[in-house]
Amino acid sequence: MISHRLSEQMNFLIEVEKLKAVYRQNMVYDNSRHENSAEHSWHLALMAVVLSGEAAEPEVDIARVIEMVLIHDIVEIDAGDTFLYDAEGNLDKDERERRAAERIFGLLPRDQRDRFLALWREFDERETASARFAAALDNMQPVVNHFVSDGCGIRGHELTVGQVVAKKAFIGEISPSLWEYTRETIDKSARAGFYAAE
Amino acid sequence: MISHRLSEQMNFLIEVEKLKAVYRQNMVYDNSRHENSAEHSWHLALMAVVLSGEAAEPEVDIARVIEMVLIHDIVEIDAGDTFLYDAEGNLDKDERERRAAERIFGLLPRDQRDRFLALWREFDERETASARFAAALDNMQPVVNHFVSDGCGIRGHELTVGQVVAKKAFIGEISPSLWEYTRETIDKSARAGFYAAE
Repeated sequence: MISHRLSEQMNFLIEVEKLKAVYRQNMVYDNSRHENSAEHSWHLALMAVVLSGEAAEPEVDIARVIEMVLIHDIVEIDAGDTFLYDAEGNLDKDERERRAAERIFGLLPRDQRDRFLALWREFDERETASARFAAALDNMQPVVNHFVSDGCGIRGHELTVGQVVAKKAFIGEISPSLWEYTRETIDKSARAGFYAAE
Repeated sequence: MISHRLSEQMNFLIEVEKLKAVYRQNMVYDNSRHENSAEHSWHLALMAVVLSGEAAEPEVDIARVIEMVLIHDIVEIDAGDTFLYDAEGNLDKDERERRAAERIFGLLPRDQRDRFLALWREFDERETASARFAAALDNMQPVVNHFVSDGCGIRGHELTVGQVVAKKAFIGEISPSLWEYTRETIDKSARAGFYAAE
């Protein structure tokens, strides 16, 4: 007899298959298709493992960061991916994502639902050192991706260096070294013509 | 000045972008394309978090399982994905993957290279409780995927229930509950015609 608990857990794990079909603005490196939020989440989790030593705040709990980035985009199954530079789409993003979190994490047994909802809110609010480090990785990865995929994912959006820096400069407070790398990558992308002049 | 260490770490993290373009036999749930090894790894990491209570062996270290599944398929960037039921392809799989592990993990700083190589070998050898639990998840996920994607990923392979059970029954020693769920899913797929009669 399969327990009610396992049955709920598996229903959740089957539901999240759908994150593999939520596509982001970015492309995969060979530009064959858009990147999806599931593989983006994998990339962030691996970044957390490799770059754990780059966090400026000693309170960062890497195991917690990893869990946070694994689940941070699951709400997009209902709410869709909202492009960071889409001012209009970001107006009702919070409400759409809140409802999505309640439905999707609500498939889990109550203790895990509560834990995942708290973890997702922690990520979203950026008030703990772990959430800030997760946000730094989540904001750094697309900038690196823009450069390695020849800017294909953001063509037509006419992003300027100023716009990108304005959204990403907070990384510097969380990790000076990761911001330095990110800032250099922004400049390389600008020189390659992937971001528009001011 | 970006440190040599960070530069090596980022070269590795950029190289592993390629795992998003290593495609498996399985399809994503809407059958729009094959599943890739990066999103598969994300799914396993999330399964490890959610299903940690289902491991029979108390020695399972879930943080270690998560790291293991995040990196377990990175060797496929060079070695390709070898279908579990491809007897010929599995003949030289070990040697191809060993060389790939040395090249790709070799991009990292020496301490991380050694750590990831050890973690990957631990996964591959299945001799620790954590590696066995990771292997159970890695073998359960495709079976569930076959069922939820209407068997599309394995059409034409004429897998039989006996073949699938022979490859997967070891899950029962690692987690009786996960094997029970997997076994029921195999039967549902067989009834739906996704696996051939014996």
